[in-house]
Amino acid sequence: MRHRMDDQDTLTALKRRVIEFRDARAWGPFHTPKNLAMALAIEAGELQELFLWKEDSEILTSLQNDPFGIRVREEMADILIFLLYLAQAADVDLSEAVKAKLIKNQAKYPVSKSFGSSKKYNELD
Amino acid sequence: MRHRMDDQDTLTALKRRVIEFRDARAWGPFHTPKNLAMALAIEAGELQELFLWKEDSEILTSLQNDPFGIRVREEMADILIFLLYLAQAADVDLSEAVKAKLIKNQAKYPVSKSFGSSKKYNELD
Amino acid sequence: MRHRMDDQDTLTALKRRVIEFRDARAWGPFHTPKNLAMALAIEAGELQELFLWKEDSEILTSLQNDPFGIRVREEMADILIFLLYLAQAADVDLSEAVKAKLIKNQAKYPVSKSFGSSKKYNELD
Amino acid sequence: MRHRMDDQDTLTALKRRVIEFRDARAWGPFHTPKNLAMALAIEAGELQELFLWKEDSEILTSLQNDPFGIRVREEMADILIFLLYLAQAADVDLSEAVKAKLIKNQAKYPVSKSFGSSKKYNELD
Repeated sequence: MRHRMDDQDTLTALKRRVIEFRDARAWGPFHTPKNLAMALAIEAGELQELFLWKEDSEILTSLQNDPFGIRVREEMADILIFLLYLAQAADVDLSEAVKAKLIKNQAKYPVSKSFGSSKKYNELD
Repeated sequence: MRHRMDDQDTLTALKRRVIEFRDARAWGPFHTPKNLAMALAIEAGELQELFLWKEDSEILTSLQNDPFGIRVREEMADILIFLLYLAQAADVDLSEAVKAKLIKNQAKYPVSKSFGSSKKYNELD
Repeated sequence: MRHRMDDQDTLTALKRRVIEFRDARAWGPFHTPKNLAMALAIEAGELQELFLWKEDSEILTSLQNDPFGIRVREEMADILIFLLYLAQAADVDLSEAVKAKLIKNQAKYPVSKSFGSSKKYNELD
Repeated sequence: MRHRMDDQDTLTALKRRVIEFRDARAWGPFHTPKNLAMALAIEAGELQELFLWKEDSEILTSLQNDPFGIRVREEMADILIFLLYLAQAADVDLSEAVKAKLIKNQAKYPVSKSFGSSKKYNELD
């Protein structure tokens, strides 16, 4: 019996996998931070293209079916893969970065002022 | 003594944290897949802006110093945060998505053809 | 009396203006096609940010008032400015490019099949 | 004899053409500012993809040959087409917007401080 442990993967374990994939192909030299940021933006554009012109309700229904669901998952995977490559290139611990950002956001978006509001922090009264 | 366990965080643990942050502010209703994909693209643009006009060597040096290093880590964090929100909204297991994509990429980019090459799979001879 | 001729400007006249602005600052060497494409994507992200989380009806109302209207016009201007810089760097006649693309789109999206439909050409029955 | 007048086209004339193309297909209702900004970002991503991983020198050489040159022109055309659609949806005069932005940029980037520098205005000494 195969033990399902996917969602217990750490970012470190995932990063190791993608770096292994990359190094087997000797792609490291292409992976400058600038190229990787560009790749991230390109993938974010491809993800957006799947949702363009569509209503929210239509998207939610489509997500439950393949091939649409698969395409969305693939674009999301591409974004995470390039983010992991960039974490390697820029020597960033992503978990730590997220936690540090949440602490900062907590100050920018105090619950009392931002509850139920989509305003940017500099527009909160 | 606080045990440092950041890089051992699973994506599930990180996702739980950002969803908690969000739900405390009742931002869930804004988090449609379309809005979140848009947010991802915006953050990818902000990350790119940090590298625009700069040479690779200049970027690598700057990354080792703050405030530049902090700003890069914050933009990378924002990308992962929105990706986790989208994973929640679209019911996607990111680890599984990455592994499935790597398997697909393995077929698209066989080592023998893609070694040391930056060509797209449909341009490999 | 100053004759209002703004909307009669040709792309060539506009391009001459932005190139003049640039050359006065000796920015030409930074304007590689790759950097300019990156700049375009960054500006497109900034434009998107103005609309993020907002409903269509709210956006249409806000557009009629400043400062929101001004910010949108400024981001749109930035996109056109960088597109003109790229047209210069890549030696592209934008008018001709648009007309050639419309002819191609006419074949990809025949009226009979695409009327009232937001489907991509490869999804039209 | 067909008179070549491409580069003498005004933005107004180009806009009229793309709106005509659109209205023949009854696509107007899809053209909310939010969808159009999204489309712009997607096209900017596709443009970037043509340059990703490539060196500047390689790009400049490739631009002189088709099919690469055609693909770049098509992506640039798509960006201008969606910008014209957005100009229509948001009632923006693009020429005027560019000129207003150049005036603003003149104040943000005085020649004396920005000559030969790629720094952002808020980083100029």
